[in-house]
Amino acid sequence: MTPTVVMKFGGTSVADAERLKRAAQRIVAKRDAGNRVVAVLSARGKTTDALIAEAFEISPQPDPREMDMLLSTGERQSCALCAMAINDLGHRAISLTGSQAGIVTDTSHTKARILDVRAERIRVALDEDAIVLVAGFQGVSTAKDVTTLGRGGSDTTAVALAAAIGADVCEIYTDVAGVFSADPRVVPDARKLAVVSFEEMLEMSASGAGVLQLRSVEYARTHGVRIHCRSSFSDAPGTVVGDGAQPGAAARPAITAVTHSTDEARVTLEHVPDAPGMAGRIATLLAEANVNIDMIIQNEPVVPGAGADMSFTVPRSDLRDALGPLSAFAREHAIQIHTDESVGKISVIGEGMKTQAGVAAQVFSTLGAERINIQMIATSPIKISCVIALDSVPDAVRSLHAAFLS
Amino acid sequence: MTPTVVMKFGGTSVADAERLKRAAQRIVAKRDAGNRVVAVLSARGKTTDALIAEAFEISPQPDPREMDMLLSTGERQSCALCAMAINDLGHRAISLTGSQAGIVTDTSHTKARILDVRAERIRVALDEDAIVLVAGFQGVSTAKDVTTLGRGGSDTTAVALAAAIGADVCEIYTDVAGVFSADPRVVPDARKLAVVSFEEMLEMSASGAGVLQLRSVEYARTHGVRIHCRSSFSDAPGTVVGDGAQPGAAARPAITAVTHSTDEARVTLEHVPDAPGMAGRIATLLAEANVNIDMIIQNEPVVPGAGADMSFTVPRSDLRDALGPLSAFAREHAIQIHTDESVGKISVIGEGMKTQAGVAAQVFSTLGAERINIQMIATSPIKISCVIALDSVPDAVRSLHAAFLS
Repeated sequence: MTPTVVMKFGGTSVADAERLKRAAQRIVAKRDAGNRVVAVLSARGKTTDALIAEAFEISPQPDPREMDMLLSTGERQSCALCAMAINDLGHRAISLTGSQAGIVTDTSHTKARILDVRAERIRVALDEDAIVLVAGFQGVSTAKDVTTLGRGGSDTTAVALAAAIGADVCEIYTDVAGVFSADPRVVPDARKLAVVSFEEMLEMSASGAGVLQLRSVEYARTHGVRIHCRSSFSDAPGTVVGDGAQPGAAARPAITAVTHSTDEARVTLEHVPDAPGMAGRIATLLAEANVNIDMIIQNEPVVPGAGADMSFTVPRSDLRDALGPLSAFAREHAIQIHTDESVGKISVIGEGMKTQAGVAAQVFSTLGAERINIQMIATSPIKISCVIALDSVPDAVRSLHAAFLS
Repeated sequence: MTPTVVMKFGGTSVADAERLKRAAQRIVAKRDAGNRVVAVLSARGKTTDALIAEAFEISPQPDPREMDMLLSTGERQSCALCAMAINDLGHRAISLTGSQAGIVTDTSHTKARILDVRAERIRVALDEDAIVLVAGFQGVSTAKDVTTLGRGGSDTTAVALAAAIGADVCEIYTDVAGVFSADPRVVPDARKLAVVSFEEMLEMSASGAGVLQLRSVEYARTHGVRIHCRSSFSDAPGTVVGDGAQPGAAARPAITAVTHSTDEARVTLEHVPDAPGMAGRIATLLAEANVNIDMIIQNEPVVPGAGADMSFTVPRSDLRDALGPLSAFAREHAIQIHTDESVGKISVIGEGMKTQAGVAAQVFSTLGAERINIQMIATSPIKISCVIALDSVPDAVRSLHAAFLS
């Protein structure tokens, strides 16, 4: 049976006429190699930012339904232009909006979730030998309104389509060559990883690796979609994300990658009353403000009944939204709030951790040798994360990469 | 019963944030005055031109289906932004794409015709007290593809919606104050007309008056939709187009307006074989190339059987499309083709002509007194058009306006 490939091109890969034509050529080459091809495109270059600026020129708080109607136009433009380029190369291409492609979402405007993919129209077009271009980042809600999936949502569109049409692989083309053992801008000798498991990729996306949107990795894991992250500017293979071709446990290094995030803020609440449900109420307040809490630490009170200390991190850009509801709650319960915006987070990630002991000890002693103070620690079976001072992040990443991966 | 009004705003009326907010205020004022309001918006300022330029940067001959997908985004952006502005003014507004508004067209991409308007979603929204904004210029084809209605198609969208929802009036807001007795840029003392009949407006739109798209006037006449053409920058009444409030024949001047067009090219075919069906075959060739022929003149052959001469005019921008199929046909039948791109057309139009004799004689003698040579003449019961040298057009318009309307 003819293999089916979903290819996704990000905004930088279609930013100008030359790049867009190059993407068209790659799509045609894939077709000529005997594949059925669906390509998902993002909006060109800075289009989405420009549209957001137009909206804020009109309204201080743009209506979310209308924001989606506005922003969804960028990807449609990319797809229409790319279809023109492909038609000029002698292949038939049709562009489809998210709605036409059958991407059905819930009604959460600006951050909708995909509920269903009704890909009949894509299947018919593929059967008619057409190349299908789908506008990323968008769908149609159950109320028949245009929705968008949030920043980076085109990755999710690509993975969801790959799952729906049973594609053999979902290729994500970006301006980086794949997934690296650390950010090459910080660690010049970081290596491109040939294979990463879904679990590892999830932890990496959640802890600062920007190459794939977290939600798209979750979707890929749930539906078993193999992702191939690769460069739009070269033919070299990139990184395959999936559970198929993993090396055996024996061959695995203790860790696969070091990631970091410099977009963190730490909030500490002092003297939180030592009563059941307090943590839950605080987390609920933050969730209602749409703030994602990352790491949470709570200490037992030193003197019973004296109140506990609780610390957590949030994306720095969400700090203001977090403090609004928190301040009122803190006043009510005589809690003191401290914030620190000069923090960052480093993480070591790897399936190898499951079978190799002593990784945590080596992380802490490596940071200690660099005289880097660890403010908070969080772990999962395949990840150790530490919150540290923002200006120590580059040294921490380099020393951990040197200790584990060089 | 609550009156229903369709308001249409052109591209200049929503070009920047300030104008778009002013349009939003006018829409809200109309709602506050006790009307149910549907507003149709065009793309902002030069958006459509910019998108066309992007397309031609990618492809020398952009695929029409994809051109429609691309261009339809401009009006969606206008509507989303205007809905944001109206929501900020404390009214509920929702924007709809042409497809969501139920505009069903044929499959002639870039110049689709409206087949049906399924306005249920608009009616439901109006019943829920919302202001409905509809992206002009576009629809969805019977093959479920996005289509556009051709330049100025937003007028047609507005009229078609007005007909479908039984609106009391379709207000077309533009950057001019209404329909004038001549182009005020050419004739400074041209008068704004209070009322124009459908027939007159049809002739005027067909002969160069840019204020309303021809097709929208045809649609309005067929469905009895009263159009009110007015300025988006003033509250003064503009021009009502309709058959209701016409003055009696006695009160009518011989002509209502002088129009002109400088976008003409003349094609002359020499020695067309004097055989039945030749004119039909030539017209069919041009129709298949989607070229609109305007005036046609054919002379009897001087010597029987010697072949006739045939001249016609086409929009200058269509000349290249016309010559393609014509050249092959001409070679085959030994026909010689001459073209002249330096021609223009002036027309005098008025219902008064039906009852007043001598109008044609006065037109020709007025042009003769200005030493303007008439190359072609075409007439209808309420119109006389003359093709003349392009550089004589302003003088011709001024002298005719002075002779009939000053």
